Amino acid sequence: MITVLAGGVGAARFLRGLVLAVDPAEITAVVNTGDDTVLHGLSISPDIDTVTYTVAGAIDPERGWGLADETWTAMANLTRYVGVRPAGSTAAPEWFNLGDRDLATHFYRTARLSEGATLSEVTDEIARAWGLGLRIVPMTDDRVRTMVDILEDGDVTTVGFQEYFVKRRHSVPVTGIRFDGADNARPTFIDAIGASEAVVIAPSNPLVSIGPIRALHGVDATLSAHRDRVVAISPIVAGSALKGPADRMLSELGFEASVLGVARLYAPICGTLVIDERDAEHRDAIEAIGVRCVVADTIMRTPEIAASLATTTLTAAREGARHDR
Amino acid sequence: MITVLAGGVGAARFLRGLVLAVDPAEITAVVNTGDDTVLHGLSISPDIDTVTYTVAGAIDPERGWGLADETWTAMANLTRYVGVRPAGSTAAPEWFNLGDRDLATHFYRTARLSEGATLSEVTDEIARAWGLGLRIVPMTDDRVRTMVDILEDGDVTTVGFQEYFVKRRHSVPVTGIRFDGADNARPTFIDAIGASEAVVIAPSNPLVSIGPIRALHGVDATLSAHRDRVVAISPIVAGSALKGPADRMLSELGFEASVLGVARLYAPICGTLVIDERDAEHRDAIEAIGVRCVVADTIMRTPEIAASLATTTLTAAREGARHDR
Repeated sequence: MITVLAGGVGAARFLRGLVLAVDPAEITAVVNTGDDTVLHGLSISPDIDTVTYTVAGAIDPERGWGLADETWTAMANLTRYVGVRPAGSTAAPEWFNLGDRDLATHFYRTARLSEGATLSEVTDEIARAWGLGLRIVPMTDDRVRTMVDILEDGDVTTVGFQEYFVKRRHSVPVTGIRFDGADNARPTFIDAIGASEAVVIAPSNPLVSIGPIRALHGVDATLSAHRDRVVAISPIVAGSALKGPADRMLSELGFEASVLGVARLYAPICGTLVIDERDAEHRDAIEAIGVRCVVADTIMRTPEIAASLATTTLTAAREGARHDR
Repeated sequence: MITVLAGGVGAARFLRGLVLAVDPAEITAVVNTGDDTVLHGLSISPDIDTVTYTVAGAIDPERGWGLADETWTAMANLTRYVGVRPAGSTAAPEWFNLGDRDLATHFYRTARLSEGATLSEVTDEIARAWGLGLRIVPMTDDRVRTMVDILEDGDVTTVGFQEYFVKRRHSVPVTGIRFDGADNARPTFIDAIGASEAVVIAPSNPLVSIGPIRALHGVDATLSAHRDRVVAISPIVAGSALKGPADRMLSELGFEASVLGVARLYAPICGTLVIDERDAEHRDAIEAIGVRCVVADTIMRTPEIAASLATTTLTAAREGARHDR
């Protein structure tokens, strides 16, 4: 069994390769739900949907989120209501795009949750509806919300993750992050870590994608107990995030926006870091802090490159596990 | 001021005429909310939307509900989830069509209600968004649900109104009706009745459209206290409902599916009944039970015919009110 700790786009592309490299039935993708939100009364799980749609080959390739061949009729008709919305109301949020095709997923999730199904059950049903062979599980069935302190007009304000990421297009400085509810949320995957021959930390934002997963009770302790078979793939390549604000966020919060910064963040829980060829020069520095380092092509331009990266990653995990014994 | 007690399509067409006949600012439409339901987590108020869209001239004229030029992308994509829905789940209900344009209205309503707005406030905001000059108010801000006992496969089952009306296409016999929550729901419009020169009971189903409004505390007593200025328009013409199951439902529940049956139902609260020319022969029988009777063209094929019917109705109310003094 292989467990992958996953955020959104980068993790989704890695998983799209991994299902080509190994039997999907062996894969469990544990997905961040700190980004989850409720809009229009609908339960939205952005990272789960990005993983599901990407592995299904249904994602919009340009946007990296949402379905291909999408239409936006419902959203376009919200405009009418913006003018009558009272001051202070957040109804008719036009800043979070939900495509018409995509809405069916949120409808199904919302209806099932209101019937008392767990998010794990619904996520599994949705994955089956898309014909996926791997297991996709939310990191927890409890409510955890990533809250971001942002600096705006000279003041620090705390907003929900989507209000930072989508509404402000992650263009404001971040001064803090916390995961509301994480203290009391039960992780769904502690047993899976123990039962896995490899645990992969996907190339996702270490702070706001992997961070919420690590914030759950017992996760870091379990990962460090199996540290040698845990392999992370750096989401930072040559000092930059391929997508999203990970690089700026690392700097703003006092970490180094580099593969070495990622290595330091993961060192307690992860035996091996896979870095991109462009960062090969940092290998020795990474190994010097006790993290084995593998250099590979990590830019997943095609599913085939992602599959090759997956194979490299699993090999590194197996080598790490040998170390373990 | 004119108050109109309204259900769906028939009432909506009457109101579309009424706004041509008098200053819309004088009109309050009190709309049945017993049909309201929650689907996909969205708060749906079918009669309010039918009235709003019709008066706005935006209704689909063939269907009589929903918006013109509608698309159905979100609904079409629900199909994928029907196959993975566990036994007993009612998620992904494909039987209740919600158009993509229409969804924006349910999104706005749901978001505002979850912010703590009353249904009256939201309904008013939505009416303004559509540029309407009349007041549209839900009959109550509290939850009332019309429940229908139906005879199916030899057994009586109780279902929500939409499950009878839409899911079974009102094609099963009805053995009973009740209005869950009506005992404790506060009507929004008692004062409006007292302040109105005319109260019109629109040509709506007397049992399941006007019935829920009458079931609210104090409504029948207030109407009967102002009985002479209350005018109803018969939804039954020549023994048939123009739309919907009112005729069958009246018969099944022991009433007469005729203008006389309607007159008997409304006699305690209504001084005048407007009937169609095709029912002119029943005028004497109606007046014999103490209800004044006016004969008119009640088939609202155009807004102009509806406006003419509105004028006739208001004249009848004024004549009734003179009686009153």
